[in-house]
Amino acid sequence: MSEQIVEHIASAPSSAAENVRSITDRARRASRRMAGANRAWKDRALRAIAKELLANEHHILAENARDVAAGREQGTSAAMLDRLTLTAQRVQGLADALENLASLPDPVGNVVRGQTLPNGLRMRQVNVPMGVVGAIYEARPNVTVDIAGLALKSGNAVILRGGTAAAHTNEALLAILRDALDSVGLPADAVQSVDKYGREGANLLMKARGQVDVLIPRGGRELIQAVVTNAAVPVIETGEGNVHIFIDASAREDMCVDILLNAKTQRPSVCNTVETLLVHKDATVTRAVLKALSDAGVRLHVDSRVAPLVPAGAASFPATDEDWATEYMDLDLAVKMVDSLPEALEHIRKWSTGHTEAILTNDLGNAEKFIAEIDSAAVIVNASTRFTDGGELGLGAEVGISTQKLHARGPMGLTELTTTKWIVQGEGQVRA
Amino acid sequence: MSEQIVEHIASAPSSAAENVRSITDRARRASRRMAGANRAWKDRALRAIAKELLANEHHILAENARDVAAGREQGTSAAMLDRLTLTAQRVQGLADALENLASLPDPVGNVVRGQTLPNGLRMRQVNVPMGVVGAIYEARPNVTVDIAGLALKSGNAVILRGGTAAAHTNEALLAILRDALDSVGLPADAVQSVDKYGREGANLLMKARGQVDVLIPRGGRELIQAVVTNAAVPVIETGEGNVHIFIDASAREDMCVDILLNAKTQRPSVCNTVETLLVHKDATVTRAVLKALSDAGVRLHVDSRVAPLVPAGAASFPATDEDWATEYMDLDLAVKMVDSLPEALEHIRKWSTGHTEAILTNDLGNAEKFIAEIDSAAVIVNASTRFTDGGELGLGAEVGISTQKLHARGPMGLTELTTTKWIVQGEGQVRA
Repeated sequence: MSEQIVEHIASAPSSAAENVRSITDRARRASRRMAGANRAWKDRALRAIAKELLANEHHILAENARDVAAGREQGTSAAMLDRLTLTAQRVQGLADALENLASLPDPVGNVVRGQTLPNGLRMRQVNVPMGVVGAIYEARPNVTVDIAGLALKSGNAVILRGGTAAAHTNEALLAILRDALDSVGLPADAVQSVDKYGREGANLLMKARGQVDVLIPRGGRELIQAVVTNAAVPVIETGEGNVHIFIDASAREDMCVDILLNAKTQRPSVCNTVETLLVHKDATVTRAVLKALSDAGVRLHVDSRVAPLVPAGAASFPATDEDWATEYMDLDLAVKMVDSLPEALEHIRKWSTGHTEAILTNDLGNAEKFIAEIDSAAVIVNASTRFTDGGELGLGAEVGISTQKLHARGPMGLTELTTTKWIVQGEGQVRA
Repeated sequence: MSEQIVEHIASAPSSAAENVRSITDRARRASRRMAGANRAWKDRALRAIAKELLANEHHILAENARDVAAGREQGTSAAMLDRLTLTAQRVQGLADALENLASLPDPVGNVVRGQTLPNGLRMRQVNVPMGVVGAIYEARPNVTVDIAGLALKSGNAVILRGGTAAAHTNEALLAILRDALDSVGLPADAVQSVDKYGREGANLLMKARGQVDVLIPRGGRELIQAVVTNAAVPVIETGEGNVHIFIDASAREDMCVDILLNAKTQRPSVCNTVETLLVHKDATVTRAVLKALSDAGVRLHVDSRVAPLVPAGAASFPATDEDWATEYMDLDLAVKMVDSLPEALEHIRKWSTGHTEAILTNDLGNAEKFIAEIDSAAVIVNASTRFTDGGELGLGAEVGISTQKLHARGPMGLTELTTTKWIVQGEGQVRA
C-alpha cells in the first residue's frame, strides 16, 4: 500500500521539490504519532524489523548482490565493495543491534530538570523527540537499518538518503522497515527515503529547514563537508578524526607499546584510531614503540629527529605537513618529536580535528594541563584512543561521534536524537 | 541567496577578510586564556566592567547622543530610537545586570555525568566553554554589554557585530569592556567587534566555520532569518514568538481574564506575549475576556464567529490569514473560535513559530493532550505565556529564547553557552 503511494508520487508529473516536500510533510505527520508511542510500542517495532530482516534475508542478499555486481563492473575499490556487501552474518548483526536497541531505556520523557517556582508554578524540562531526522550517508546499507532503528527508538521519523551504489539493497531494506512499522500499528511513513531523487533529493533535504529538524551526515570527509557547507537544516558534524597521542618523558614503556598497538592496529579504518604520534625528546620508550608498530605492519611517516630511532627494515617515509594533516584510516602513522608538552599542544591545536587526543604520562601536572588545554571532544590519559565510542563509554548505542560543539560533542547516544520541551503548570499565575 | 553572499565575499577587498581572520585568530587565543580562568577571576572582570561603565557614564551618553541624533536626522522610528537610546538609568541597569551575573554559579567545570567503567576507566563529561561566540544584533547598545557579559562569565571570547546606527555607542562600550578585562589580567581580545567592516564583517563572521563556534543572532525576524540562511557557522535561532493561548470550554473566567491581560498587555513588544487567542465554542468566558482586553486598549482581529461577542465600541477588525501569521508585538490580538481541542491543535501546528503555547482548562485529559501534542519550546497550562523567560524559570540569566531544537530550546542560560568535553583516565587500558 505505502509502496504504491511512493510509486504513484514518483510517476506524477510534478517536480522533485514537490515530491520531497510531500515526503517531509508525511514525515512530520508520522513523527507526531511516533512521539506519542510509548517505549513498549516502539520496542515492538524494532523487534518486528529484526524479525523481518531475518525472514527476508535471501531477498536482501539477492538485491545486495545486484548492487555489488554493478559496483564491481564499475571498478569500485575493494574497500568500498566490502562496505557495500551484506552477508548472512551481517544481516544477523543488524537484527542483533535492533534487539539491543529494544533493550535500552527510552530517552523520551526523561526529566532533565524540574522544580516548583516561588510563585507555585511547577516547571519541568523533559526530553522529547526531535521530530524529523534526516540522514545522508554513503553506500553502506547497514547504516540504513542502523540510523532508522536509532531514530525510531528515540521517537522520531527519519528520511534517508543512502548512496546510489546501494540503491537495490536500500530499497529492499526500506520496504522491510516500513512493513514492520505497519505491522505493529505505527506509521510506515516514519521511515522514508529520497533516494529516487538522487543528488537533487539530497540537496532538497539539506534545504528543508523547518521540515527537517536535524541532519546527520555519515561518511567520509567530502560528504560531511558538503552537507555542512550546503545545509540550511541544522547539521551534526560527525566522525572526522585526526587523532593524536603524545608520549611524555615520564611515560611507562609497556603501557606505551600496548596502547599504540591498540590505537593504531586494532581497527585502523575507524575515526578513533591514532593518526599522529608525538614523542617527547626525553621519552625513553620511542624506539620500542616504533619497533612494535613496525613489526605489526605499520608504515611510519617520521620527521628527521625520529628517523634515527626507526628500526632497520621498517617501512618508513619522511613526514611532510601533509602527513600531519592526514587521517590515514590505514596502517600508517605520522611520528614527530617535540621538545616539550607546550610544543605538543601547539602541534595538536594546529592539526587536530577535535575528535580525540591522548597523553601517556606519569606526570600529574602534565596530565592536568593536557586535559585543560586540549579542545577536543574526548581527552584521554593513559588509555587507548579507541575508547572514544558510545558503546565503550556506556551510552548503549551510538548515533555517531560529533566533532562540533553544538548540541552533541563526542559520542552521541539516543538522548542526542531528542530535544527538550519546557512544561509549566499553574493555577492562574500571571507575571508580576 | 547564499551564492550571492559567497560571490560578494569573493569580490570583496581581501583586507576585510584578512582583518576578520586576524580577529577570529586573536579571539581563539583569548578564548584559551578565558577557558583557563576560574570563576573568581571572571567575576572580577564582570565587576570591573560594571565599575567602568558607571565611571564612564558621561562619555557613553555623549557618544550615544551622537548616534541618536544621527538616527533622528535619518527619520528613524520612535520605537527604534528608544531601543538605541541609553540613559543614566539604563547604564545603571547594565551595571546591575553584570553584578547579578557575577553572583551566579559558573557553568564551566560542572560534571554532566561520570562513572567508572567495568574496565576501570574513569569517565566524566564536563561543561567547558564553547570557545568563540559570535553575536549579530541590531542597534541596541545594551546587547553589546549584555552578550559580552554572558559570554565572558561562561569562559568564552566573543566577537560582536552590532547595528551601524549604534556605532559610536558600541565603540565606547567596546573600549570599556576591553580595558576592564585588561585591568584584571584577562585578555582584551576576549571581546572584539567586526563593526568597522560593516555588512562585509557580518558576512565573514557567518562564514567563519571552525573559527567561530556558535553564532547568536538577536533582533527581528529578518535579521535572524538572514543569519540562519547564510551562516556556515552553527546558529542558535532565537526569539520569534507567534504565541497562542487556547481557552477550553471548562476554563475558569477569572483565570482567563487575568492571564490574557497579563499575556497581552504587560509588555506587548516581547516575544512571549500572546498573539493569537483561540476560544472553544462552548467557553462561557469569551465575552468577558474580550471586554477586559478591549478596555485595556487591545485591538481585536476576530473571525466571523467571534465578532458577535466583541463589546460595542471596541477596536475590532475582521481577521485574515495574515493575522494568524503575524507576531504583532503590539496591543493587537487575533481571536478565533474553534469547535474542539483538535481544531485548536491544528491551527497552532499551522501557524505557531514553536515558541510558547498555553491552554486554560479544567479538563485533565485536555491538558495532557495539549502538553503531549504541542511541539513548542514551552507548553503552559493555566498560567501566563510571559513565564517563558530565563529569569522567571530560574536560570539566573538569559542569553535568549531558542526556537530551534538543536543544542538549546526555549530559555537559554549560561550553560547553553558551554559545550562538553569527555575526559577519560586510565592506567594503560586498551580496547578488547
